Amino acid sequence: MKRMQMFGLLNKDMDQIEKELYRSVQGDDDLLTETSLHLLKAGGKRLRPVFVLMGGKFGQYDLEKLKRVAIPLELIHSASLVHDDVIDDAELRRGELTVKAKWGDKIAMYTGDYIYAKALVMTSELGNPRIHQILSKAMVEMSIGEMEQIRDFFNSEQSVRHYLRRIRRKTALLIAISCQLGALAADAEPNTARLLYDYGYNVGMAFQIRDDLLDLSGTEKQIGKPPGSDMRQGNITLPVIYSLEDQRLRSALLTELASIREGNSGVGRAIDLILSGEGISRAEELASRYIAKALEALDQLPSNRTKRNLKDIAFFVTGRSY
Amino acid sequence: MKRMQMFGLLNKDMDQIEKELYRSVQGDDDLLTETSLHLLKAGGKRLRPVFVLMGGKFGQYDLEKLKRVAIPLELIHSASLVHDDVIDDAELRRGELTVKAKWGDKIAMYTGDYIYAKALVMTSELGNPRIHQILSKAMVEMSIGEMEQIRDFFNSEQSVRHYLRRIRRKTALLIAISCQLGALAADAEPNTARLLYDYGYNVGMAFQIRDDLLDLSGTEKQIGKPPGSDMRQGNITLPVIYSLEDQRLRSALLTELASIREGNSGVGRAIDLILSGEGISRAEELASRYIAKALEALDQLPSNRTKRNLKDIAFFVTGRSY
Repeated sequence: MKRMQMFGLLNKDMDQIEKELYRSVQGDDDLLTETSLHLLKAGGKRLRPVFVLMGGKFGQYDLEKLKRVAIPLELIHSASLVHDDVIDDAELRRGELTVKAKWGDKIAMYTGDYIYAKALVMTSELGNPRIHQILSKAMVEMSIGEMEQIRDFFNSEQSVRHYLRRIRRKTALLIAISCQLGALAADAEPNTARLLYDYGYNVGMAFQIRDDLLDLSGTEKQIGKPPGSDMRQGNITLPVIYSLEDQRLRSALLTELASIREGNSGVGRAIDLILSGEGISRAEELASRYIAKALEALDQLPSNRTKRNLKDIAFFVTGRSY
Repeated sequence: MKRMQMFGLLNKDMDQIEKELYRSVQGDDDLLTETSLHLLKAGGKRLRPVFVLMGGKFGQYDLEKLKRVAIPLELIHSASLVHDDVIDDAELRRGELTVKAKWGDKIAMYTGDYIYAKALVMTSELGNPRIHQILSKAMVEMSIGEMEQIRDFFNSEQSVRHYLRRIRRKTALLIAISCQLGALAADAEPNTARLLYDYGYNVGMAFQIRDDLLDLSGTEKQIGKPPGSDMRQGNITLPVIYSLEDQRLRSALLTELASIREGNSGVGRAIDLILSGEGISRAEELASRYIAKALEALDQLPSNRTKRNLKDIAFFVTGRSY
């Protein structure tokens, strides 16, 4: 998955962020540099830095300041991925071997710790306690979200509300504060920062729902890992929850989930069951509702070119492939 | 191992810190609250908060401010212990089951992440970017130290310098900044903060050497886990390095280390070999030299009751049991 390339004006700044992202984890220790770079160079859409820069466009845009928010946010996101891969026993991410697969659980754990700490050092250079506070509170929520996910592994009784709370913590919050912190680092109006937070939150929710949908309906090439990976790991996502609500599918799907849980096959059959019902379209429908809310927040922001770009991203997230 | 009880005047403040330490990890999630409290309630000497309060005595002592440094430092230390226990496959810590042993590696990992993040939220409430920066840089160093430790597992060729660099990162740095940040949070003179850092650094080095010594020469009751646990995990400490330098012991000790590495017995025999030579006394000698340096830094500080107490701690660290 490659970096987003749709925002001509930001591309140069994003190139610089990409370089500094690599530089930010270098030098202290050969092995940590190697594992961290392996992770970062596997790519990613760099959504969080993009949102920071766009948030910055609503105030005094200063790349030097914005970098000190954008890079830490991408680092925190990346660190959470290394730790996730330990939990999920994931072999592949973005088509590359995970740090966990290449170096083992222990080294992956300290790689995450190291990247988290590096992120915090860079934020501290901004000298803005409010930004530090928003960031560290988000880290608390993220770790709670991860814990909820462990606890909900293979829990076929979980509700939609449960799922939404989890993805709010796991994904939406960090995207929301990316937009907000970009605005704050650029001294934008408080109300602008708040609206950008709302936009980011709703885009983040839609984004995670789409990601979970793709895991079921995408191809291995599209998603960089085998389809159904979430289910294989016990991560019950929205389309699965909706499908379990469908009495025509419920018992057959429960049987497959039990079989997957015991390490037997069943993922392919489970996906076929889900595709045969309305789970996918209901989840798409909910993602669209979040996008509509994101656009509502956008409507209240001053008109400028960035606002148009943010609208494009919202549509891009609802798009079928990315 | 119980909290240090030698500083009459600080005891009341330490009681309050103990309570707030428990409160600091509560509320967000039942399982994370339970695992975090299990860890914190197993006790510990609370050396880092004690040093913060004592550092604060060299400036405008304000418990409310000092707490926001003392609690995060103890939390960061505790979080690093949960992650260490995952790496070391440790079953017991301070005589209690580790989080890892009770809940497994994955939950232990997120418990550490959660406690780190909670620590950072509390520090951010101080609104002092310099303190945040010192703390996050220390976290980077700690994770590098942990990585060095993994890489040096069972490395019988490592030098004393290697070992000292590792314990500097793993232990001494956090104790040094505990003293320093207490002074900074109390707006003490910069030179005072610097001397307190030097004191803490040297006490921390001596403390870790003593801890590593106790693992070989202490009883299970004294240390809360079976003697020789470090060696069993592959952690080669100073007395072992010194003993390997002794040509009369070297080959026999290498044989035992190889046997331990392969999961066979040998710890008892290795300890007997080490006790028969001068490894223990040479390590004790080096610890004493660090204590002497700590006292030198102390000498340059203004005289007050706290300075006396800091001297007591330095001697307490060199003492045989604690």
